Amino acid sequence: MKADLDRLMHERSLDALVLFPTEFEDPYRAYLSNGAHFSGGTIKRRDEPPVLISNGMEIEEAARSGLTVYSTEDFGESELMRTFRSDYDGRQVAFYRRVFDRLGVAGRVGVYGAGDANAVLRLVGLLSVALSEQVEFVTETVRATIFDAAYETKDPAELIALREVARQTSAVMRAARDWIAGHRAAGDTVVKADGTPLTIGDVKRYVRGQLFERDLEDPEGMIFAQGRDAALPHSKGEASQPLKLGESIVFDLFPRRPGSYFHDMTRTWSIGYARPEVQAAYDAVMEAFRRSMALCRPGVSTREPQVAVCEYFESLGHPTVLNTPGTSKGYVHSLAHGVGLNVHEAPYFPTFSDTYTIKTGSVFTIEPGLYYADEGFGVRIEDTVVMSEAGTAESLTDCPYDLVIELKG
Amino acid sequence: MKADLDRLMHERSLDALVLFPTEFEDPYRAYLSNGAHFSGGTIKRRDEPPVLISNGMEIEEAARSGLTVYSTEDFGESELMRTFRSDYDGRQVAFYRRVFDRLGVAGRVGVYGAGDANAVLRLVGLLSVALSEQVEFVTETVRATIFDAAYETKDPAELIALREVARQTSAVMRAARDWIAGHRAAGDTVVKADGTPLTIGDVKRYVRGQLFERDLEDPEGMIFAQGRDAALPHSKGEASQPLKLGESIVFDLFPRRPGSYFHDMTRTWSIGYARPEVQAAYDAVMEAFRRSMALCRPGVSTREPQVAVCEYFESLGHPTVLNTPGTSKGYVHSLAHGVGLNVHEAPYFPTFSDTYTIKTGSVFTIEPGLYYADEGFGVRIEDTVVMSEAGTAESLTDCPYDLVIELKG
Repeated sequence: MKADLDRLMHERSLDALVLFPTEFEDPYRAYLSNGAHFSGGTIKRRDEPPVLISNGMEIEEAARSGLTVYSTEDFGESELMRTFRSDYDGRQVAFYRRVFDRLGVAGRVGVYGAGDANAVLRLVGLLSVALSEQVEFVTETVRATIFDAAYETKDPAELIALREVARQTSAVMRAARDWIAGHRAAGDTVVKADGTPLTIGDVKRYVRGQLFERDLEDPEGMIFAQGRDAALPHSKGEASQPLKLGESIVFDLFPRRPGSYFHDMTRTWSIGYARPEVQAAYDAVMEAFRRSMALCRPGVSTREPQVAVCEYFESLGHPTVLNTPGTSKGYVHSLAHGVGLNVHEAPYFPTFSDTYTIKTGSVFTIEPGLYYADEGFGVRIEDTVVMSEAGTAESLTDCPYDLVIELKG
Repeated sequence: MKADLDRLMHERSLDALVLFPTEFEDPYRAYLSNGAHFSGGTIKRRDEPPVLISNGMEIEEAARSGLTVYSTEDFGESELMRTFRSDYDGRQVAFYRRVFDRLGVAGRVGVYGAGDANAVLRLVGLLSVALSEQVEFVTETVRATIFDAAYETKDPAELIALREVARQTSAVMRAARDWIAGHRAAGDTVVKADGTPLTIGDVKRYVRGQLFERDLEDPEGMIFAQGRDAALPHSKGEASQPLKLGESIVFDLFPRRPGSYFHDMTRTWSIGYARPEVQAAYDAVMEAFRRSMALCRPGVSTREPQVAVCEYFESLGHPTVLNTPGTSKGYVHSLAHGVGLNVHEAPYFPTFSDTYTIKTGSVFTIEPGLYYADEGFGVRIEDTVVMSEAGTAESLTDCPYDLVIELKG
């Protein structure tokens, strides 16, 4: 959690964390700046709270962080603009020389944040030369950075936010289920009151309305995929496709409070009835889900439940990523990922690496699935859970797991 | 425009453009991949169309680009995972060695995209060493990159998208004006039918509903700021604040089609009547707006209209960024910016640099404003325009400029 950053900086010999300004949405900045809405820079020296650097127009938004906020004018930005004119490189070096001097940024400095790749490479290259006496820029292995380590556990304020978005997202999923169930069938097609087919586009529109009502946003777009599309784990689904009886539907919903914490959950539905192979896959996935919930304990490598699920599925004859590299059928992904200001963050659950250990206060998904595109179905069940003080995986998601939706219309 | 990229690559001696995979939303990737929704990498060699590299789960989404799509499995990703296990650095180097060899990426390579700063620095650092015989990674000055040059003009397909989002955004702004006008006043406060105050939160909720109806998203959040807040150009406005008669309201709306093109427009309103100082500022801003529209012509440095507006405002006694560095009152920002897949992109309109020239097919805002926080008001008027074949600035925005909203409720 965030309070671990100073300890982690000591362990990793990092003297400062620097996030350069960016107009891109930056979850690192949201994390360090307590969710302030500004596009400026953030600097954290070891054993000091973060400080923000904002252009004049966003000062008041930045100040909502409760942190010390400097204006770019405090470092003479307008004067530098007049001096350097078209020489953006020279201006940036001069600006950050002042910033680093005044804020005491020196030693081993890690650069983080979401940003413009070319701009970050350019700026760090320039500063590495210009400030070589003062600063050594260091990088960390991907997925093992100091932020990954911090994200692995959530503090009480984060857990409140995660519980609330879980509650609201679950309510949307339940509402969607009830709304679909209120329709009727004509032949093998679900139809609206006027007899026209109920499409995936209609369902997504209903869900977006439900999200809107609850002030949730869906920046990456939900998955509502039927039949063969349900077997392509990241297919979003075809808006024009009518809902059909007996087809598996994978509904993966991962909204957030605007600029804040995500929830991530998936249900698999089959309207009217389930084909035997879908029912069998669903039963296997639910058993994998239950086993995973039981296996996730503090101190366990995240590889363990992932491998256990692979072995369980393989015992039923399904290919998995454990022994069928690159398989596109059977169990084709990893069991879980952390959830926070990023929909995917540490801890990850790799098949072949013991990089992550489950900890008390970890918040992560559990999402086994089985996919058979050639047979036209896919199944996934996903909750987001917190590893509780009691040492058990407590689900934050609150929604029935039932496969079959009986039409009541 | 995108079709200029090959010419620009020749001019800049760039052999390849590389966008590494990222889960962050990446407007560079959207640009090169024709808006495909995937999280993978994109590589463009000079004089060749871009090719995409996707994980297996997103292959079909990536294929919607119409471009050649490789799977990460084509480069043996699962085998590398098994071989390298926890050694992410080694695995990445081995993976990109294969990718660059197979796709012929060599010579001077520019890295672009929205990404994780630490990850990009790490990967480019590793590859610079490992592939030093084959690849030289080069960076470009910020705001003068090859993408900035491409973004400066829009092609016909982009203009269609920009016109459509302009039409829809304008309709939302007009609807909001009419909706507010349908209310009545009690004393100096605008009230709803039940007599309770109409708040900024109420207005934003109405506007979000209107955006939702038109399938627009508002990822950065509109500005609807009243009184003193209207004088802080990036203040979003206080949800709990009731709308008051005679206060200036700055309403800056910049939504987009999901994952696609933005529109950006601002109106300043005053309900019931305008205070004389607000009316005077509005008149000056409208005159600056008209002068800017006339000054923007193909071949003109973007500095020229910016300086002309500064000089005009200064002739009326307002401080500006031209001669009052860092001023927070008067005219405190630049006149305009390009609009595309980014809400702010090239061309920019700096006060002290001739970096950008207006071109036929440029799409940019014109947005003069005057801000007086101590006097409790701000005024800004903004349209997004296209520099037409006829050589004139044609507004894409379609909404009255009137300051005063008469209540009809």
